[in-house]
Formats: sequence, structure tokens, C-alpha cells
Amino acid sequence: MTMLVLENTVETLFSKDFHLLQALNAADLGCAVGPTTFTVISIIKRMMEKKCRELNCQTLELQVYLNDLPRNDFNTLFKGLSSKVVGNKCEKVSCYVMGVPGSFHGRLFPRNSLHLVHSCYSVHWLTQAPKGLTSKEGLALNKGKIYISKTSPPAITEAYLSQFHEDFTMFLNARSQEVVPNGCMVLILRGRLSSNPSDMESCFTWELLAIAIAELVSQ
Amino acid sequence: MTMLVLENTVETLFSKDFHLLQALNAADLGCAVGPTTFTVISIIKRMMEKKCRELNCQTLELQVYLNDLPRNDFNTLFKGLSSKVVGNKCEKVSCYVMGVPGSFHGRLFPRNSLHLVHSCYSVHWLTQAPKGLTSKEGLALNKGKIYISKTSPPAITEAYLSQFHEDFTMFLNARSQEVVPNGCMVLILRGRLSSNPSDMESCFTWELLAIAIAELVSQ
Repeated sequence: MTMLVLENTVETLFSKDFHLLQALNAADLGCAVGPTTFTVISIIKRMMEKKCRELNCQTLELQVYLNDLPRNDFNTLFKGLSSKVVGNKCEKVSCYVMGVPGSFHGRLFPRNSLHLVHSCYSVHWLTQAPKGLTSKEGLALNKGKIYISKTSPPAITEAYLSQFHEDFTMFLNARSQEVVPNGCMVLILRGRLSSNPSDMESCFTWELLAIAIAELVSQ
Repeated sequence: MTMLVLENTVETLFSKDFHLLQALNAADLGCAVGPTTFTVISIIKRMMEKKCRELNCQTLELQVYLNDLPRNDFNTLFKGLSSKVVGNKCEKVSCYVMGVPGSFHGRLFPRNSLHLVHSCYSVHWLTQAPKGLTSKEGLALNKGKIYISKTSPPAITEAYLSQFHEDFTMFLNARSQEVVPNGCMVLILRGRLSSNPSDMESCFTWELLAIAIAELVSQ
């Protein structure tokens, strides 16, 4: 499903004549060490090759920036970049891969340098524990829990929402400067169907994790 | 001395109006894990800031690609990239650093994407032991030696020269496609004053190393 969205996005870029550019610059934000990021590169490359044949283009070039925090294991990531992923330079699409260490909540790339941004299950993580999880007296307001739960007071929901709002605004602000006009972003992040943030659908994992942590602490 | 050459090269790029571009793209080929590569980034950045003040430019952007073979320790390299090297994003020159795993004897970047290429003590290394170090019968022609020496037959000098010629041609061929017209390269590599390739000036280290290896093998 998400791969289909990515394929359609590459198709959209071609419909906007991005293939007339010298090279298509794509970034995968929060790439970790693979293998998802390798699949992402392969899909973009395969779609470019397909469109290249359809439109009877000369060879195209793809520059892929793989980003994660500086403490990510880039050595393992680079070792995993086999020739199968990057491909033979004689093919229709030549692919050049770079590693970009840094937080995607700030600027990572020069202005107007990206045509396609992809991020899979990374953007929902917060930059820090929200402010406002304790009372003015320093007492924990969300006792025994590590996220919004059925027992959380409304201030907790507000605190998490506010932190996500701040982080996501920083993310969008940075990308708005880096992505070219009419560029595309494919962001895959956790969501929920219910309007209730403490619904079991979205909080089940955190409830179990909170119980496990509490159990460890009690020992 | 070499730093002065780099400073002058950045000055040359400005005289060719490269500062009117969106971002200056520089590559350090064979960067290892620092600290030389950090000095290179700092010099380019400082010179850009100086020229920026002189020419009363708005802020400029610098994109630096740090390249080495995929087995290089990029994790250590990225950890060494302190804010002191990359700099505060509020300064006159914003700096964005990327790691590029791969051999500089092949293509690493899209066509016409680099304005400045720097390489310090890397380009003189050969990609492999030259062909022709043995006779047709498979006997070593350069017995007890690991490079051209006073006792080496002329075929050995020819073999090393031919391998360097092949490697350096591949290097120049790749860069000729990647560097923009009027772009600049600063290559620092081992050389010698004498026309004699077995002169002590250039072979002293290799002679000592050959003796040490022979001693180890004999034990």
C-alpha cells in the first residue's frame, strides 16, 4: 500500500516534467540501517526506469540522501548498499547514494535541493519528553504511564499534542525551505481511526510497555 | 602551503561568480575519519564567509560531500563533525555535510554537480597490485621489494607506471563528468624532484618496509 503511494508519487514527479532535470534528488529521513530504505531506493529507481522507457528518455540520474541521527550505524547502512540496490552504472538510471547525519527537525539540505522526501515510521517520534508531565510542585501527573492512557488527566493529552505540534512544525519548516516548488513528500506515520487518543487501538503497546517498566522498577 | 592553495581556489570560484549559485558543492575524496577533512571544511567555510562580507552577499550555502571507501569508519567521521566544524545555521554560510561511500576511481556524483573537488594524499594509491610483477612462468620479478627500487628491472617501473596511468585516467574520467565547467580541483599527492623513480627521496619508506616484511616472513 505505502509502496504504491511512493510509485504514484514518482509518476506525479514525471508528470511535472521533473525528468527533464539533470538528476532527481530524493531523501529518506530516519532511514536506520535498512532494509526498508533499500526497498525505497529500489522502488524509486524502478519507477524512474519504467517512466524512462515509456517517455523514451536518455539515461537519468538519481541522487538519494539517507538521513538519520549521527548516532545511527551508518557503517552497517553503507555495507548493506549492495550493487543490487544501487545498480550498475550502465543502466537507464544511475543511482548515487549519500549518508546525511543529523536531526530532521532542523535543516539538513541546501535550499530548493530536494524533489522527493520520504519518511517511514519516523516523524511521529517526539524530540523530547513533553513539558507539563509534572505539576508545579514537581509531582508526576501521569503516574505509572508512559503515554496518554485512560487514567491520564487532560493536561497530559495537551502536553503530548503540544510537543508533537512543536516538533512537526519544525520538521515542516525545514522541509519547506529544502523542497523545490511542486516537489513531493511521502510521510508514513502512526495514526488512529478513533478521535479518542487513549483508545486501545493506538495505546495498547504503550500500556503493556508501561506495565513491564513498572514491574522492572518494583523489582 | 596546501591550505593556501585551497583558500586561493575558493577565491577563484568567487571570481567566476560561483557565489551567485544557490549552494557551493564541494567534495573531499579519501577523507578518512578526520581531522584533516574537518580543517578542509573549515577553510572553505571561512573563505566563503570572508568573500561573503567583502561582496556584501546574503547568506550562502555550502554542501560538503565526504567520500571514502565503504569500509571507512563513517560513524567515527560523523561523530567528529562537531558544531564547531559545521557551524551555527545562523551564520553567513550554512554548511551541510554528507558522507559518500565508494571508490573515487568510479562515478560517485551526478553529472555537473560539483564546483570544488579536494583530495589530500589519497589519489596516489593504486587500486590493485600492478599486472606484470611476475614473469610468464609466474616468477616474481621484483624479489624482496614492494615497490620500485634500485634492484628492480625496468619492467617493474613500467608496471607501476601503467597501473597509475590506468587508475588516474579512471579518476579524471569520472571527475570530468561530475565537475561543472570552470569548476576547480585541488589534488595533493606524493611526488618527487628526481626523474629517477628509485631515488631514495621517494623510496626510502618502501625500502624499510620491504626489509621489515622480509624479516617477518623469514621468521
